[in-house]
Amino acid sequence: MALRGAVTRLLSNSQKCVVATASRAQGTAAAAPKAKVLFNWRDALDLEGQLTEEEIMIRDSFRDYCQEKLMPRILMANRHEHFHREIVSEMGELGVLGPTIKGFGCAGTSYVAYGLIAREVERVDSGYRSVMSVQSSLVMHPINAYGTEAQKEKYLPKLARGEILGCFGLTEPNHGSDPSSMETKAKYNPSSGTFSLSGSKTWITNSPVADIAVVWAKCEDGKVRGFILERGMKGFSTPKIEGKFSLRASATGMILMDEVEVPQENLLPNVSGLAGPFGCLNNARYGIAWGALGAAEFCFHAARQYTLDRIQFGVPLARNQLMQKKMADMLTEITLGLQSCLALGRLIDDKKSAPEMISLLKRNSCGKALDIARQARDMLGGNGIADEYHIIRHVMNLEAVNTYEGTHDIHALILGRAITGLQSFTVGK
Amino acid sequence: MALRGAVTRLLSNSQKCVVATASRAQGTAAAAPKAKVLFNWRDALDLEGQLTEEEIMIRDSFRDYCQEKLMPRILMANRHEHFHREIVSEMGELGVLGPTIKGFGCAGTSYVAYGLIAREVERVDSGYRSVMSVQSSLVMHPINAYGTEAQKEKYLPKLARGEILGCFGLTEPNHGSDPSSMETKAKYNPSSGTFSLSGSKTWITNSPVADIAVVWAKCEDGKVRGFILERGMKGFSTPKIEGKFSLRASATGMILMDEVEVPQENLLPNVSGLAGPFGCLNNARYGIAWGALGAAEFCFHAARQYTLDRIQFGVPLARNQLMQKKMADMLTEITLGLQSCLALGRLIDDKKSAPEMISLLKRNSCGKALDIARQARDMLGGNGIADEYHIIRHVMNLEAVNTYEGTHDIHALILGRAITGLQSFTVGK
Amino acid sequence: MALRGAVTRLLSNSQKCVVATASRAQGTAAAAPKAKVLFNWRDALDLEGQLTEEEIMIRDSFRDYCQEKLMPRILMANRHEHFHREIVSEMGELGVLGPTIKGFGCAGTSYVAYGLIAREVERVDSGYRSVMSVQSSLVMHPINAYGTEAQKEKYLPKLARGEILGCFGLTEPNHGSDPSSMETKAKYNPSSGTFSLSGSKTWITNSPVADIAVVWAKCEDGKVRGFILERGMKGFSTPKIEGKFSLRASATGMILMDEVEVPQENLLPNVSGLAGPFGCLNNARYGIAWGALGAAEFCFHAARQYTLDRIQFGVPLARNQLMQKKMADMLTEITLGLQSCLALGRLIDDKKSAPEMISLLKRNSCGKALDIARQARDMLGGNGIADEYHIIRHVMNLEAVNTYEGTHDIHALILGRAITGLQSFTVGK
Amino acid sequence: MALRGAVTRLLSNSQKCVVATASRAQGTAAAAPKAKVLFNWRDALDLEGQLTEEEIMIRDSFRDYCQEKLMPRILMANRHEHFHREIVSEMGELGVLGPTIKGFGCAGTSYVAYGLIAREVERVDSGYRSVMSVQSSLVMHPINAYGTEAQKEKYLPKLARGEILGCFGLTEPNHGSDPSSMETKAKYNPSSGTFSLSGSKTWITNSPVADIAVVWAKCEDGKVRGFILERGMKGFSTPKIEGKFSLRASATGMILMDEVEVPQENLLPNVSGLAGPFGCLNNARYGIAWGALGAAEFCFHAARQYTLDRIQFGVPLARNQLMQKKMADMLTEITLGLQSCLALGRLIDDKKSAPEMISLLKRNSCGKALDIARQARDMLGGNGIADEYHIIRHVMNLEAVNTYEGTHDIHALILGRAITGLQSFTVGK
Repeated sequence: MALRGAVTRLLSNSQKCVVATASRAQGTAAAAPKAKVLFNWRDALDLEGQLTEEEIMIRDSFRDYCQEKLMPRILMANRHEHFHREIVSEMGELGVLGPTIKGFGCAGTSYVAYGLIAREVERVDSGYRSVMSVQSSLVMHPINAYGTEAQKEKYLPKLARGEILGCFGLTEPNHGSDPSSMETKAKYNPSSGTFSLSGSKTWITNSPVADIAVVWAKCEDGKVRGFILERGMKGFSTPKIEGKFSLRASATGMILMDEVEVPQENLLPNVSGLAGPFGCLNNARYGIAWGALGAAEFCFHAARQYTLDRIQFGVPLARNQLMQKKMADMLTEITLGLQSCLALGRLIDDKKSAPEMISLLKRNSCGKALDIARQARDMLGGNGIADEYHIIRHVMNLEAVNTYEGTHDIHALILGRAITGLQSFTVGK
Repeated sequence: MALRGAVTRLLSNSQKCVVATASRAQGTAAAAPKAKVLFNWRDALDLEGQLTEEEIMIRDSFRDYCQEKLMPRILMANRHEHFHREIVSEMGELGVLGPTIKGFGCAGTSYVAYGLIAREVERVDSGYRSVMSVQSSLVMHPINAYGTEAQKEKYLPKLARGEILGCFGLTEPNHGSDPSSMETKAKYNPSSGTFSLSGSKTWITNSPVADIAVVWAKCEDGKVRGFILERGMKGFSTPKIEGKFSLRASATGMILMDEVEVPQENLLPNVSGLAGPFGCLNNARYGIAWGALGAAEFCFHAARQYTLDRIQFGVPLARNQLMQKKMADMLTEITLGLQSCLALGRLIDDKKSAPEMISLLKRNSCGKALDIARQARDMLGGNGIADEYHIIRHVMNLEAVNTYEGTHDIHALILGRAITGLQSFTVGK
Repeated sequence: MALRGAVTRLLSNSQKCVVATASRAQGTAAAAPKAKVLFNWRDALDLEGQLTEEEIMIRDSFRDYCQEKLMPRILMANRHEHFHREIVSEMGELGVLGPTIKGFGCAGTSYVAYGLIAREVERVDSGYRSVMSVQSSLVMHPINAYGTEAQKEKYLPKLARGEILGCFGLTEPNHGSDPSSMETKAKYNPSSGTFSLSGSKTWITNSPVADIAVVWAKCEDGKVRGFILERGMKGFSTPKIEGKFSLRASATGMILMDEVEVPQENLLPNVSGLAGPFGCLNNARYGIAWGALGAAEFCFHAARQYTLDRIQFGVPLARNQLMQKKMADMLTEITLGLQSCLALGRLIDDKKSAPEMISLLKRNSCGKALDIARQARDMLGGNGIADEYHIIRHVMNLEAVNTYEGTHDIHALILGRAITGLQSFTVGK
Repeated sequence: MALRGAVTRLLSNSQKCVVATASRAQGTAAAAPKAKVLFNWRDALDLEGQLTEEEIMIRDSFRDYCQEKLMPRILMANRHEHFHREIVSEMGELGVLGPTIKGFGCAGTSYVAYGLIAREVERVDSGYRSVMSVQSSLVMHPINAYGTEAQKEKYLPKLARGEILGCFGLTEPNHGSDPSSMETKAKYNPSSGTFSLSGSKTWITNSPVADIAVVWAKCEDGKVRGFILERGMKGFSTPKIEGKFSLRASATGMILMDEVEVPQENLLPNVSGLAGPFGCLNNARYGIAWGALGAAEFCFHAARQYTLDRIQFGVPLARNQLMQKKMADMLTEITLGLQSCLALGRLIDDKKSAPEMISLLKRNSCGKALDIARQARDMLGGNGIADEYHIIRHVMNLEAVNTYEGTHDIHALILGRAITGLQSFTVGK
């Protein structure tokens, strides 16, 4: 009765509300969905209809670039572990580096648009998306969020154009999932007005070819702070990591710092503690959440086409129940993942997001994308191990993507803590 | 360049668009999500913020009823397989039966509101939600969608008030997943102006206590049509199915028809073929997609509280990584599922939905909810098999929910067909 | 060369070895398996061929009893939560209680035979197997292993005949997985020569109907010791637990002890500390490892027959790939599980087993059996929730079986400790 | 009573049986396993105790070779896609090629020994095992089983010594899982006494470097027969497949045959139809069933050591519950898989095996090994993508191993057919 009363009151008292209700209610007269709407397996819950015209335009332009310019290069780049530096300049030209930043030559798009961009580039290759994520979220973002006006003016436009490439030094050889144990030190030298940085970082995307590095180090007060290092500084080297079987189209290396003298003006002054790097990682993880699903979509679409084309026992492979079930699962997870990424993007744009939301979707997208890629590879049978079919490359890439910027398990524990109020990372109570 | 140009043009040419962009862009200046927004594990991606005031009001009123009036009854109802008929009347009083129907004493809510209602009632028990789904989607919906004005006026108000209870006769003993092989026959008798119905239906929710039944039968022209049968008609009986270990709080039975004479005016004239019952099932499945997640949410919340309260080895069970991982997975799937249900509800309200969308979410919600309930039961250890902790009941219920109105596998094949254009249900090419 | 030399030397030097090799080598001439051996889906790796004649005879006799005498009773026993006490007497008559014990009226079979017995009874119902396990492993075993000659003579023959029924009191309401925190106290009273026991135990199979109870309590020296309590002792009560939706054919209750005076001669003198109850549990777990696979086999066979009999879309359900894949998985896990149970039984018989081996197989059998039962239930569609098809009963039963005597997760941590040397049960390092 | 009677009769009537029973029963007096037996996580159910001295000796010699000679070469071989031909000669020297064959310079070991050999080599690399499997099971086996005495004498000794290397041509570009649709033709030319072979085979291990090829072709009578082709025959070429991201240490290619004239004496006369190649595949699959578990063991052991060595949050990674659970699962599956492989090996040696048994274990070992490798890679975090940690290589390898010689799904359908009597490979009833 209470409810019925509530509904009645709403209908009679509030003209505005009545209108809204009426418009909603129109659809309900004939009630059930009519069969006239065709189901689109490429977009099962009409994500498209929830995007702005602008977002669609940005996405479409960039998709064209990715398919026409990146896709033809990736096979050999991956096979031979070759990073095409010029891609960064091309992306700069297109305006997709640091796209959410306002000013300083950046596009100032919505976070949803940023997500769509990440999805398109990772549809081609997670290595390329990694290069872009690092530049946008881990280099441009901290300079924009924590840097001085001078730093922004000096670096952001060049980074936005892809004229210079950056990398991000947080992870250390002995501390993958636990940056609070950081060993890299920054010691202030008042006489020279410089910080002396010593330590090493590893698994650093872009480092072997980067022009600048945003490096996090522990200062004498025990607080972690960020510094902008430039190639050429004495004591600063970036050896490449060899024998990588993931993200082979991007360069990965270490950052070795042996008493590198960094001028005071290269300190990022507006943040201290792990909030700095964590803010960057959240930003990047958001892009990964979208990107990994782009890779998953590629694998799904490729496996679908392969099984439609390949005849076994007289019918297309796709006619088999076992194949269809795999594809139904893929479609389901991709659809759900994308809807939630969109919801998260809107929340970030509305300043209503929390880091745990990003953990949830980074973890979900990566884990599900990896599963999908593995299933898709399996669907291709023997051909699935040949790089020309592309899926094995995504399988290998997603192993890293599922691991970096917080492993699947670490994000589970982050969520577990948020759910229970109890941390279970460490042994002490 | 193309992309940057596109963005620039948008920004300069369209004032309206600029405003939208500006408002979106505000959030992006400081870029990354600030930590100020607290993560809410009960609503990880702010579903609440996407509902209308009206929807929230309807939901809250009904949630109060469910928690205060249904929850206290369910333990014994399930233990002793007792169906409380009066619940239907209470629901009628509240206006939640056939809620999306306009007129005839129905509330005329949005489909999103309908989904929220289903979620709240299934948070208590899937059996109660089944009773409601049958009344709303499988009895009131077909009368509203396919019936005459006279039929609507005769039945809908009473059904809406819960004064009479209906059931839906489609499934036959030998044809669970394949209604096209229906054996129930309807033979027209011109002299009496009646149809003579013979056949049997099984696993019919509500049948033993229903006042009317919407029954589907094959007519002499080979087409399936719907009929409204009333209790008391000669040759019409509804034996209860005993020994059910799922949905024990609702009554389930058969419908046996031995030359039941059904007046011509009880034929639903505005549909023929399987489109009729399938339209009803789609309507019901949409409710199930929401409802199953309500059950999952109950299990998640209960397991969380249990593991926080229970101390083992000196700490709450919830302090264990293995427990936290299970909860992180639960939270993830519930969050993703709900976001997509909301998206689907909006599409239905906008008449943009396709049946395969509903298949996708019915299947996903049920499968995931069943997994979650099983994990939650496991987290309760020995206590998890006692009905007073409620989770074992949800485990048992969701077995049926995952099966009825299209099994998990059948919906996989429906999706597989939509993805590939090839059917794999049957053996012939 | 070393290898070839080794082979040659073996062949020439050791006559005995040559014979063995020759007999082995015969099979290798024509090399690959000939197609003449028919594959038996009921015994995929010829377990039968690895049993002794005696083991087969014991198994076959008991299987007949189970199928002819237990199977007809279980449906109503489970539906109405009724425990048939006479079953214990029947089992006693057959010689399957405490079967591995030598003397005292026990059969003195091998541990493999014990496993085969457990498998046959659990093929019918896990509740019945629980009753038998408790009597054999948790009551007769500790009396035999830790008791005095007088205790053995007093209790074992009656227990072996099923004349009296026992239960085992270890688990306490607040300490499911952590018996070291036991709160039940035993205080010695020198004047009366009795121990005064106070405390409560819960989830005790058989307790409401048991004649005696082996109860574990913490003595004043802090050590856990076992006591034989008899029904009728003052302060000793055993309330039944209601609303159990698992193992409904067996009785489960609590043991409440309010200063129960237990004569000194009822102390089990030959063990102290948790080694006592843990030894019993290992014994029982071994039986569970076999038993759970018996339940799984029932579900597999029943689902196979159901899908062969049921026609949908013109062919038997079993003709569908999705069904066949489920059955292939079931067969695989059952086959592997049984082979390993047999290997473990032989090791126990040869005194070469370690408790972690039992943890490994208890955990594996229960987890896999539960999965198989769930899949089988799903294969039955709507009928799968009706108890007359039996599978839903196994699904419910196996929830408890997977939990009791060490949950799936606890055994994972036991194995984890054995693998790494590091315990992760508790928070302190 | 029947059972007890049976036992009693056995005990009194049969002296032999009494002895057996007594010896079994000894272990049961003190009953439960004593804690004195230490659990060995490297061999959880004492596989070692079930091997003959000879088998252990063969295994140990070969293990030394694999660890000392193969392990140091594999990193660069895999990184640079380099096949070390000399390995075949080394294996020949050791006597492990065609090891179960009697005579012709072969070792004549048991099938169990063959399995142990496969496990040791695949512990290093699946590519190396593939080379060995092809030589032993797919080249030497068919010559031995289906060839003439002259063929055996001509080829087997050289193949056994690794002096020449063979490959096996069955799979065709358009018929991966369905060899019955084979397109390669063999046409007899009575004038020259030769068969003219035309067609193409793909995904042929060893083909680019093989000296001979056992090729299957359809003769004019529609029956498939095998032929021994030699490198140098006109029209016979074996292009390498590039861009393979699996089994990179072995060479893979095609076999292209453009009217290759094959002398009549190169026909394998003693088999026709698919029984020929299927017999070979069964032989090889048996080796794979063991080998894949060797790869899994490597990954398990490596991940265990890594997590013991790596400190995060102040404790070894191995101290975490999430890590221990993964390892418990790995140990379980490896243990069960090996026990069943042993049982199968004994059955083959005793001529009691059926092909479906091999399907069951090939499928199980490969699927489980792939899962284990993936989990292990995940446990290594970022380092897990570097080839120097070896696990990523196994992940990539096992993708192929799970696919070739019958995919995971195909073997499911083979088992499904054996279980139900209904084939579900093809669409027609």
